[in-house]
Amino acid sequence: MMPTKVTIYEVGPRDGLQNEKGVISTEVKVEFIQRLVAAGLPVVEATSFVHPRWVPQLADAADVMTALGESGRGLPVLVPNERGLDRALELGLQHIAIFGSATETFAQKNLNRSLDEQFAMFEPTVTRARDAGLDVRAYVSMCFGDPWEGAVPIDQVVGVGKRLFDLGASQLSLGDTIGVGTAGHVKDLIGGFVAAGMRVDDLAMHFHDTYGQALANTFSALQEGITTYDASAGGLGGCPYAKSATGNLATEDLVWMLDGLGIETGVDLDAVVSTSVWMASHLGRPSPSAVVRALAQSPA
Amino acid sequence: MMPTKVTIYEVGPRDGLQNEKGVISTEVKVEFIQRLVAAGLPVVEATSFVHPRWVPQLADAADVMTALGESGRGLPVLVPNERGLDRALELGLQHIAIFGSATETFAQKNLNRSLDEQFAMFEPTVTRARDAGLDVRAYVSMCFGDPWEGAVPIDQVVGVGKRLFDLGASQLSLGDTIGVGTAGHVKDLIGGFVAAGMRVDDLAMHFHDTYGQALANTFSALQEGITTYDASAGGLGGCPYAKSATGNLATEDLVWMLDGLGIETGVDLDAVVSTSVWMASHLGRPSPSAVVRALAQSPA
Repeated sequence: MMPTKVTIYEVGPRDGLQNEKGVISTEVKVEFIQRLVAAGLPVVEATSFVHPRWVPQLADAADVMTALGESGRGLPVLVPNERGLDRALELGLQHIAIFGSATETFAQKNLNRSLDEQFAMFEPTVTRARDAGLDVRAYVSMCFGDPWEGAVPIDQVVGVGKRLFDLGASQLSLGDTIGVGTAGHVKDLIGGFVAAGMRVDDLAMHFHDTYGQALANTFSALQEGITTYDASAGGLGGCPYAKSATGNLATEDLVWMLDGLGIETGVDLDAVVSTSVWMASHLGRPSPSAVVRALAQSPA
Repeated sequence: MMPTKVTIYEVGPRDGLQNEKGVISTEVKVEFIQRLVAAGLPVVEATSFVHPRWVPQLADAADVMTALGESGRGLPVLVPNERGLDRALELGLQHIAIFGSATETFAQKNLNRSLDEQFAMFEPTVTRARDAGLDVRAYVSMCFGDPWEGAVPIDQVVGVGKRLFDLGASQLSLGDTIGVGTAGHVKDLIGGFVAAGMRVDDLAMHFHDTYGQALANTFSALQEGITTYDASAGGLGGCPYAKSATGNLATEDLVWMLDGLGIETGVDLDAVVSTSVWMASHLGRPSPSAVVRALAQSPA
């Protein structure tokens, strides 16, 4: 029942860097993306076209994509709305991701919209993207717990996810945004989507390590047949030294487990580790990834 | 198949503190043990009677046990050999643990004996302990990988474990001493012991988080029916800031997962977290446990 092959969806350049305090130059961002692609990561989400007022770390999104040129066309970027889609279309990009909420409170706080109203915002974005031949991924955030509402009912998450999927997304990324989920909850949530008629290949899991659960949750999801996992090189965006730690699962920790399980990823672990060590030097602090710490300390 | 109830075997005062650089007073050690017992941890390994030349951090082992008095009689202590057993017997203790190796190289380096010779050392220790009515636990270290020999064959681990068990131990603690094991290997190792005629209730798992795998490995072992797990409050002994990080699984991270799975432990998570925050202040550095970091940062 466990897959023999898994796709790692690398979110370090976008989800990672948008949550880091350090200022990273456009040049370094471009090299970071190029190194991750060269390390064999099959999908690297490159940046976000969210307004710089909200995410100043990625204010140079267009510059990054322009510098990547032809090689960046196939990399997904996050777009919050039609305005972001316009920018992606101008640059000739082929993959976008939208970011929805599974809970009312987070929809209000993050999108300034009700849970229902978010669909009205995403509908024209997804429709226009699809009409232009673009592929659309939909993030569903707060799928397990929410800081304001506590545990999120599975029916509610499945309902939101299905509505986003039915707008025309090709894949849902189910996010444990605050990292509170545990392995049994993972199984139940996936089961809820399958019971609602979705295929496991339409789902990706996006775990955070805030409570140390990301890999245990991944092992649970593997047993349910999920084949796509989001992760962030070096655990970027999950710095344990910062109060705002979001705790992204480190790509290296994930690859270590998958390699051990004999599950193919195509990723060169050493190349990702050296990329993360290099990026940590630009951020001025060590990587929070356990595997990076362990391997970077070993004699080469 | 998953157990409904799990025993957490707390190793922080022994395995944790022996790997910490900070000097902790006898008084603080005693309070630490008392707080862990009060938090509902059913077994707290209190200290080690290894010669202070090897483990200076626990040179006050007899003082700690004397200060605990009657309440410490039921707590296990590590004894390396007959000399250590003598000290435990003098203090009227009822539970000891011995520490064996699954690999030739680690037996030589840690015990200054061959793999075969370790049994000759343990045999009189275990026999005398059992004759005196004591309970004996046997640690088997390097059960997954070894820094010198690489991956350790399952047959070899099962062979060593069975010999230690047959000396008269009541439980084997299978240690991933360098933290390299992954979830499939865990399943296979447990399967090897079961195929050799041992019961899952004779086995405990001792995972290290050096490569971030401890909870995924625990979730794998739970599915094989293992009911006892070693863990260290606050991840003591696994400081990510130190090059010598051994990476003990943090008790809090384990309890978070077990609580989420609805598996009973009897442990009061908040009480363990506050104990770890208090101990971190004595060590002068933050706890490496993800759950301690997350909960200690939350508004109470």
